[in-house]
Amino acid sequence: MISIVSDEAPPGAPAFTTVIPVRWGDLDAEGHVNNTGCFRFMEETRMRWVSGLGLPTQPPHPVIVLLNAACHYHRPLGYPADVEVSLHAGRIGRSSVQTHYRLRDLGAGELAAEGFATLVWYDVALQKSVPLPDALRKALGP
Amino acid sequence: MISIVSDEAPPGAPAFTTVIPVRWGDLDAEGHVNNTGCFRFMEETRMRWVSGLGLPTQPPHPVIVLLNAACHYHRPLGYPADVEVSLHAGRIGRSSVQTHYRLRDLGAGELAAEGFATLVWYDVALQKSVPLPDALRKALGP
Amino acid sequence: MISIVSDEAPPGAPAFTTVIPVRWGDLDAEGHVNNTGCFRFMEETRMRWVSGLGLPTQPPHPVIVLLNAACHYHRPLGYPADVEVSLHAGRIGRSSVQTHYRLRDLGAGELAAEGFATLVWYDVALQKSVPLPDALRKALGP
Amino acid sequence: MISIVSDEAPPGAPAFTTVIPVRWGDLDAEGHVNNTGCFRFMEETRMRWVSGLGLPTQPPHPVIVLLNAACHYHRPLGYPADVEVSLHAGRIGRSSVQTHYRLRDLGAGELAAEGFATLVWYDVALQKSVPLPDALRKALGP
Repeated sequence: MISIVSDEAPPGAPAFTTVIPVRWGDLDAEGHVNNTGCFRFMEETRMRWVSGLGLPTQPPHPVIVLLNAACHYHRPLGYPADVEVSLHAGRIGRSSVQTHYRLRDLGAGELAAEGFATLVWYDVALQKSVPLPDALRKALGP
Repeated sequence: MISIVSDEAPPGAPAFTTVIPVRWGDLDAEGHVNNTGCFRFMEETRMRWVSGLGLPTQPPHPVIVLLNAACHYHRPLGYPADVEVSLHAGRIGRSSVQTHYRLRDLGAGELAAEGFATLVWYDVALQKSVPLPDALRKALGP
Repeated sequence: MISIVSDEAPPGAPAFTTVIPVRWGDLDAEGHVNNTGCFRFMEETRMRWVSGLGLPTQPPHPVIVLLNAACHYHRPLGYPADVEVSLHAGRIGRSSVQTHYRLRDLGAGELAAEGFATLVWYDVALQKSVPLPDALRKALGP
Repeated sequence: MISIVSDEAPPGAPAFTTVIPVRWGDLDAEGHVNNTGCFRFMEETRMRWVSGLGLPTQPPHPVIVLLNAACHYHRPLGYPADVEVSLHAGRIGRSSVQTHYRLRDLGAGELAAEGFATLVWYDVALQKSVPLPDALRKALGP
């Protein structure tokens, strides 16, 4: 059984915003950014966010694994284009955080997609989840 | 606002089942199949399904666009591995069909992920949705 | 038999230079940009170049097909990183142009890779090569 | 300066042959397998080869890094298609081996591409090359 919680992004300012240029190679045989491209853009956004906080993103350091991910596609993305992605943080647990994304086509000025992903910090060697890094918890505020 | 309907896959036999070999290049810096990989496997499954029905998958023919897509990750996939993906069809509309997927790691004999995607048949030149192809509607049964 | 001509990039200023941010998803299980990533960066560089000249890059317009492509890997690329890619044009034919690339890791200030690709302008519907677009020929100079 | 040695594949039987199904997602906006796809197929072929010899392909074990890679494109690959890739081993050094590839479109019965890559076994922690694994050296014969 699948049970993705479809909660809305919380109000307020995003925790992080970045701009990602579409690559020609993101297009598929239909001539638009492939459906996996939006998940790639969400991944890149959170990796820029945690990297910018000084956190490593590769083993042997704890890494981010996903419990789930989802995307609503509103408008197709073409090439060339710049995608502005904003990340809102939702529920915060001991080792997990819910993240929400809005993808805007900067040139068209339109919402292209929305999505979310539940992130868990995980120690690959120990094979278990670990507490959220302090730097991240501080960034997420009180 | 995001509002992904998290309905379960319908009971009964899948409409289509296939086996996809993991590629080494599907792994990311964490050493497992990247989160986008499962969306790629779901895409490949539906494309094998519709291709096997004799339906074209590229313009100028009507193509499949996604309204949404989601995935629950249960266990990481490594390399080498074969992933058995079964596709169940859910709600059927004039031009859309809901599709549900189960991804099993064949060697481990375990469920690796579950997901769904809402597909719409779309004419790229006309820029509008078109009725489901007859061959697909027949395959989906009465 | 394989017969890749390994001519050097011509001296002089590049025809085009751009900066491409590495994506976390470009890394593979070894923790560095995958070997295909450098070919992706070369592709993105030429697509930005021809798009910037006002030329379309998708059917039904003539498209760019490759006769060959090659890359020398000098130093691994990590994440995050910005890659500066310069493109030199070499031999120009009726419907083809040789392109040479240098990929520099901007932060490290070091050459990461060099490569080349022979491009042919091609009409997908007619299934034959077509003359280089005027805008490209002009950009390549007398 | 670039100096790719364009030596031919040696005569005789290939060291390894495998069949890789094209994925729909390998296609790009031109409707054929993207140029990076053939490099992906060559990578997958050598990874199946070394995995089949019982050799690990991820850190902390020594990994395969590429000094160079090249491809000649003969005919475009579409979807669906199965690609048969044969690997011939060329010059063998202390820590390196030259590999040559032929990619055949099984359905069309035609050569789609040829390529090569120079592989080096490398210890990521020590940051230096290591001798070829014994299992590989044995497989390459006297």
